[in-house]
Amino acid sequence: MSASPPIEVAFPEHARLLEALTEALGPGAVVDGRERVNSPDDAPIAVLRPSDTAEVALILRTADEAGAKVVPWGGRTGLVRGTMARGALALSMERMNRIEEIDVLGQTMTVQAGCVLETATEAAEAAGLILPLDLGSRGSATIGGAISTNAGGNRVIRYGMTRNMVLGLEAVLADGTVVTSLNRLIKNNTGYDLKQLFIGSEGTLGVVTRAVLHLRPGAGGGVTTALVAVPTLMDVTTLLRRVEGTLSGHLSAFEVMWDDYFQLVTTEPARGRSPWDQSHAYHVLIEAMSSDGAQDAERLENLLGDAMESREIADAVIAKSQVERDAFWAMRDDVRQVARFGPIMSFDVSLPISEMEGFVAEVRKALAACWSQTKPIIFGHLGDGNLHVIVAPVPAEPRARARIEDIVYSAVRERDGSISAEHGIGLEKKAYLSWSRSPEEVALMRRLKVALDPRNTLNPGKVIPDA
Amino acid sequence: MSASPPIEVAFPEHARLLEALTEALGPGAVVDGRERVNSPDDAPIAVLRPSDTAEVALILRTADEAGAKVVPWGGRTGLVRGTMARGALALSMERMNRIEEIDVLGQTMTVQAGCVLETATEAAEAAGLILPLDLGSRGSATIGGAISTNAGGNRVIRYGMTRNMVLGLEAVLADGTVVTSLNRLIKNNTGYDLKQLFIGSEGTLGVVTRAVLHLRPGAGGGVTTALVAVPTLMDVTTLLRRVEGTLSGHLSAFEVMWDDYFQLVTTEPARGRSPWDQSHAYHVLIEAMSSDGAQDAERLENLLGDAMESREIADAVIAKSQVERDAFWAMRDDVRQVARFGPIMSFDVSLPISEMEGFVAEVRKALAACWSQTKPIIFGHLGDGNLHVIVAPVPAEPRARARIEDIVYSAVRERDGSISAEHGIGLEKKAYLSWSRSPEEVALMRRLKVALDPRNTLNPGKVIPDA
Repeated sequence: MSASPPIEVAFPEHARLLEALTEALGPGAVVDGRERVNSPDDAPIAVLRPSDTAEVALILRTADEAGAKVVPWGGRTGLVRGTMARGALALSMERMNRIEEIDVLGQTMTVQAGCVLETATEAAEAAGLILPLDLGSRGSATIGGAISTNAGGNRVIRYGMTRNMVLGLEAVLADGTVVTSLNRLIKNNTGYDLKQLFIGSEGTLGVVTRAVLHLRPGAGGGVTTALVAVPTLMDVTTLLRRVEGTLSGHLSAFEVMWDDYFQLVTTEPARGRSPWDQSHAYHVLIEAMSSDGAQDAERLENLLGDAMESREIADAVIAKSQVERDAFWAMRDDVRQVARFGPIMSFDVSLPISEMEGFVAEVRKALAACWSQTKPIIFGHLGDGNLHVIVAPVPAEPRARARIEDIVYSAVRERDGSISAEHGIGLEKKAYLSWSRSPEEVALMRRLKVALDPRNTLNPGKVIPDA
Repeated sequence: MSASPPIEVAFPEHARLLEALTEALGPGAVVDGRERVNSPDDAPIAVLRPSDTAEVALILRTADEAGAKVVPWGGRTGLVRGTMARGALALSMERMNRIEEIDVLGQTMTVQAGCVLETATEAAEAAGLILPLDLGSRGSATIGGAISTNAGGNRVIRYGMTRNMVLGLEAVLADGTVVTSLNRLIKNNTGYDLKQLFIGSEGTLGVVTRAVLHLRPGAGGGVTTALVAVPTLMDVTTLLRRVEGTLSGHLSAFEVMWDDYFQLVTTEPARGRSPWDQSHAYHVLIEAMSSDGAQDAERLENLLGDAMESREIADAVIAKSQVERDAFWAMRDDVRQVARFGPIMSFDVSLPISEMEGFVAEVRKALAACWSQTKPIIFGHLGDGNLHVIVAPVPAEPRARARIEDIVYSAVRERDGSISAEHGIGLEKKAYLSWSRSPEEVALMRRLKVALDPRNTLNPGKVIPDA
């Protein structure tokens, strides 16, 4: 291998490390990261772009020995600053983006970590199968990122979170050891299920390089979607249990919008329009997928008719076309409308369904006691116990953000809830981890971190609070 | 606390440790284990019977400090000698057998580890819900044992293995640290998912004391069961994919009996009777659960009618009553008939479905080349890729067992299969772990074991091959 000229670096103290990596990986693999971040303060030392697992291993071994820090980068669509790479090497998986194989009979996909979720989803569909993971950020989120953060999304009620879709995994440890567990089998009880270590640990225990995903049979076009107006949260819960019973095994989404949110996404400048002729407290988006959509639609219609008669629901409409279905989802997904209120804060909490009403009332009251205009705007995957809580507007005064965090997380903690249902911890929620996890749990996390990454090379300072 | 008299022990060198434990735990908590094992050689030093998590912690802390070994005992229905406790303290969870709470709205059950599976299943049903785990050993297997071994069973195709049913867990580490993660939430991405460490690690990383299980809506009586005769394994696979499509989300079992097995369970002295008027190569038991059994039955009948016409299946019968349904399952479960052949060996392997035919042919041929009478008798959860292979009769000659293991596991390894689909590793399969897992995987297992149990106190010598 011929020696490459030293690359121009913004961080001269790391010049020797970058030179060594450039020489080992070839041109184009080590690039400047300054233009990839919003603020120059957040710039990584460099962005490393390995093209295979062996290069990932080489990078990690080299960095670990040199005492450098490494932050894995997928699509960087996370919401908790889990990919902040200031002072570290960013390890971008962008060149490892291939779908290596789809086994139609075995219903598996073997894919590299940098593959964009939407690309993987479309490839599964082209093979007559589905990859059930579906997120708003599907166009840029990567498979590796979804695995590292155990992403949730719109179909958890039926298919579970990303963890449930991973059959096999390849990960590289901080010292460069490649652990290849590309299992394709549904059942495999041969020793410890090592992949679990790397799913949801946000790149702090290893770098996910490849995965085997469990695909499912396609729905064959049988999708049924309804929007339902419901007077009370108790009735929403009753509706959920009825729908689960009637559509058993077919229910794929049960999303709820509180009226504040619904108003926002159905009035100008939002494009959505309410199908109701009056206002209602809760708006439920129900979706079922199966081989016989007509049957699901008929059952759902009967169920909703009965619920109307017993006044458990106030109104309902079943989508008659893909256009109507898309319109319902567009309302649900039109989160950016909350920006109308000015600065916002966004939370992602889990609660027992029985606690949701009390939680929302407490947060609303506590916010009102501090600031007359600031209120919670709520929607979420209620079928999974997961609410997204937008607080807006955030007052300009100092410490307002910390006070709002305290209000929301206190109300969560009192109810044995989770401060992060699907977004993870990253840097953003690290200070609050102990509000959802005990000292013994945090100590065990730290013990695992030390066992797998003794020099604290991988995504340092994320997830686990400082000792 | 008053001092107890020293208990009579078969192991005088451990008298002081047992005295200390007896004093701390009270009478009845430390008992002789000799009559609980088949062979006196396998007797534990004593059987410890804690009544709560604090006592489990005390036992482990005391044993760990004294250098004693501890083997957790559930229902001891395992098949890989994972609870062999020679020279160790057996930690029986039999007194921690309470169902602490069923949350009907939240669909969770909080249960102690020693609760028998069937007790938990019946309690869920009484609450109008189901605990989807179902095993042949349901009457004695415990929840803690099912979790520690990640038990599979009859409904994996729909609900996944035990791992998928555990929301929260409490476990005690070797040093007595209690890690309580009794999460009840479907979605909780707050840091590492620590419960995964204890699920399926066969008591080597911690002792499971309590768990929160995810219950599901009851089927409401809508169970559909069919027995189908199929000419080729290719047709079996086609049938599986068709049934998955047509019964999408409702299919709960797809069990296959090879004809050797079917003959055995449908001829005297077995009670089962074949519904067919001629013999067939494969016999498939299909079951669906939903709120509308009539609809499932109609769909399945249409599907089977079409498959008869296209000769993809040879014959079929749908159960018309619970008695017929039970009769089908009784055949499937009548494993003890294989004892007619004399000594047997039993394997539990996973394979890609596309590899099954080649696997069976290879095993059959290799056995026949060694012994004229010895053959494989096969049945299993084909929908999950899991076959149970009985080899019988096992010749009396020395090394016959080792040769049979080599034949079966070689055929598995060549096809990227698993040497243990659901039974685990224990002592029995430890020597073959490396046939399914790489050196890096085994090294990482060892690294975890050292991190969590540095003195090798918990279930020593199980799962991980000696270094």
